[in-house]
Amino acid sequence: MPTSRPAEVPPRVTLLTDFGTVDGYVAEMKGVIATRAALTIIDDVSHDIAPGDVHGAAWAVAGYWRRYPAGAVHIVVVDPGVGGPRRALAVAADGRVLVGPDNGVFSRVLHDAGDARVVAIADAALPSTAVSATFHGRDVFAPAAAHLALGNPIDDLGSSIADAVMLDLPLPARHGDRVHGVVVHVDRFGNLITNIDAGAVHGPARVIISGVACRLARTYAEAERGALIAVVGSRGLLEVAVRDGSAAARLNVRRGEAAVVEPAER
Amino acid sequence: MPTSRPAEVPPRVTLLTDFGTVDGYVAEMKGVIATRAALTIIDDVSHDIAPGDVHGAAWAVAGYWRRYPAGAVHIVVVDPGVGGPRRALAVAADGRVLVGPDNGVFSRVLHDAGDARVVAIADAALPSTAVSATFHGRDVFAPAAAHLALGNPIDDLGSSIADAVMLDLPLPARHGDRVHGVVVHVDRFGNLITNIDAGAVHGPARVIISGVACRLARTYAEAERGALIAVVGSRGLLEVAVRDGSAAARLNVRRGEAAVVEPAER
Amino acid sequence: MPTSRPAEVPPRVTLLTDFGTVDGYVAEMKGVIATRAALTIIDDVSHDIAPGDVHGAAWAVAGYWRRYPAGAVHIVVVDPGVGGPRRALAVAADGRVLVGPDNGVFSRVLHDAGDARVVAIADAALPSTAVSATFHGRDVFAPAAAHLALGNPIDDLGSSIADAVMLDLPLPARHGDRVHGVVVHVDRFGNLITNIDAGAVHGPARVIISGVACRLARTYAEAERGALIAVVGSRGLLEVAVRDGSAAARLNVRRGEAAVVEPAER
Repeated sequence: MPTSRPAEVPPRVTLLTDFGTVDGYVAEMKGVIATRAALTIIDDVSHDIAPGDVHGAAWAVAGYWRRYPAGAVHIVVVDPGVGGPRRALAVAADGRVLVGPDNGVFSRVLHDAGDARVVAIADAALPSTAVSATFHGRDVFAPAAAHLALGNPIDDLGSSIADAVMLDLPLPARHGDRVHGVVVHVDRFGNLITNIDAGAVHGPARVIISGVACRLARTYAEAERGALIAVVGSRGLLEVAVRDGSAAARLNVRRGEAAVVEPAER
Repeated sequence: MPTSRPAEVPPRVTLLTDFGTVDGYVAEMKGVIATRAALTIIDDVSHDIAPGDVHGAAWAVAGYWRRYPAGAVHIVVVDPGVGGPRRALAVAADGRVLVGPDNGVFSRVLHDAGDARVVAIADAALPSTAVSATFHGRDVFAPAAAHLALGNPIDDLGSSIADAVMLDLPLPARHGDRVHGVVVHVDRFGNLITNIDAGAVHGPARVIISGVACRLARTYAEAERGALIAVVGSRGLLEVAVRDGSAAARLNVRRGEAAVVEPAER
Repeated sequence: MPTSRPAEVPPRVTLLTDFGTVDGYVAEMKGVIATRAALTIIDDVSHDIAPGDVHGAAWAVAGYWRRYPAGAVHIVVVDPGVGGPRRALAVAADGRVLVGPDNGVFSRVLHDAGDARVVAIADAALPSTAVSATFHGRDVFAPAAAHLALGNPIDDLGSSIADAVMLDLPLPARHGDRVHGVVVHVDRFGNLITNIDAGAVHGPARVIISGVACRLARTYAEAERGALIAVVGSRGLLEVAVRDGSAAARLNVRRGEAAVVEPAER
């Protein structure tokens, strides 16, 4: 079911990890994939996720997994619990496939997916693989991804489960004409991305973070250089930005900070 | 005209941005390309351009755009003015194609190209695309690149223009037997690359930067460890380097510093 | 001999350098490869090796070179002696091919290979190539890799040599029931990887580094958060780690530090 990839199209696998690149760990994974699914194009997403930052990985993959065509395989390995009792997952969702540890990295994907099925990978189901205790990226997730990239179903890899670990993702709450949310991600530019959907805003509004009110503009470019503004970001969520600067640095704000949207005075 | 790529050769798209990788923005772009031009091989150039550093992006792309074969598509997105009035460009030059914002990132390419044509991309010309106000990398440049990777002409995307934004690129000046130039790029190794062409030098010479004279050698390896030397770098320009060290750190010099070449005393 | 790649499988080339990415040097290399071997899939390993860190490059490539399938071509360019008398090498080993400078980067590959042959690349043997004095990554190693990726033998590129530069790689020594080794690599997570093979350990053991004894566990996950443990790492070597932290930072230890394994008291 997952793979509706036409025969002449090469398999495509993406890689998101917290491994960095200098140790060669990622290249070991790529080699395993190239050995088992020789036609595969491997796209790096990032290997610079902060070590163990499951929330950051869950945020990133939620942005791109459905931008890829049906049949794509997404590997996410941010896995501080490797070798312990945590399960390994294969997920089939809306035509794409994902593999990674059962620690919440797929929370946003599973929340957003129209149709999803999750399998707990059994080591014994991985063809001709010796599984180390410390590097499941190479020994579990890369072989699993290669198997799926070849068009095999996730059911080859284990049994369905219904209790994948989900991060506690805060939802915004409406109180009168205000919406109370939280900063869920700080991006490279220092933009403070909230969990408040643009659809929650009707008419002129302002966003208040850390006691500072920012008027809602249409684009970063509308602000003067150095000015704080709120905009609707590329995922449809309200965010606070500084034109040509960092809102995170200016306001000294991190993930988890409260954010409120209220009607602007006219 | 741009695409003289043989039919059996997959499209090849390169990506240069200031997005970093951890937020997944680049992967969103890759997914869009893979969806619209499924056979495409995507080569990362860099996502570590300093945020908003248009000069740095213009320098980098000038080095590689013509090293790629005819038919290659180069995406350059360093775009602090996204969502504002700046235009989006598609450039056909010497058989390669480039897309990016009209802010000077293609200044060196347009200066160096034998034959170049520039089109201002009209959002409406992008097949089945909704354009956000904040992420044209995903919503304009990736769809445009995919369209061009499939072999379509840049004229599909908009009308020709003749006034692309050009950075002010300083030229060296000869005064008697001296050539006065400037440091135009500092690379990862701390090498200070000037705008003075090797052809400007006849016979033994030395390069003076920040009051320090450096003799011209043929290779980094000719210098003693830790010594300052001038060499002809890989783009044919004079540069000042420290063997196994950083000339930028040693001399405390940045882009824009004056550089002079004069005959060496014998 | 090296290329047992099936005809329908595209060539695959990996890239490990200390070039960073922002200057575009790596993209120049990719462009040369794409021009000469148009079907090639290029996998980045890393461009973040510390400038000139030959030991680090030798460590990394040893991990992945044989994880790739037969026919793969691995480029390693950490090359502080570029332009000097050091030779350029092409290595055929266990069905894979490697190119890079003769400064020790292939020490571990040549030590580990079952069957290896080394050729000194002659510039004149590189088809239609002008060789600069400062950028052999682009002018020697990329053209050589493209030639080999097309299935040509390393003997096209020069004559066999038997005296490739080898780094001095320390071996562990057994004294009674203790094994004395050394930290040979510190990875991104701060794990201290020793040169002591897991096979040297029989029964309960502990690893002593910098005066601190760490019990041998099976996985990182067995340790309490923040606790020091020893485990068998993904290359079969003993390493010291901190669960969800950095052993290198905790113990203030770097490459070269002594490590001892001894039986654990029960």
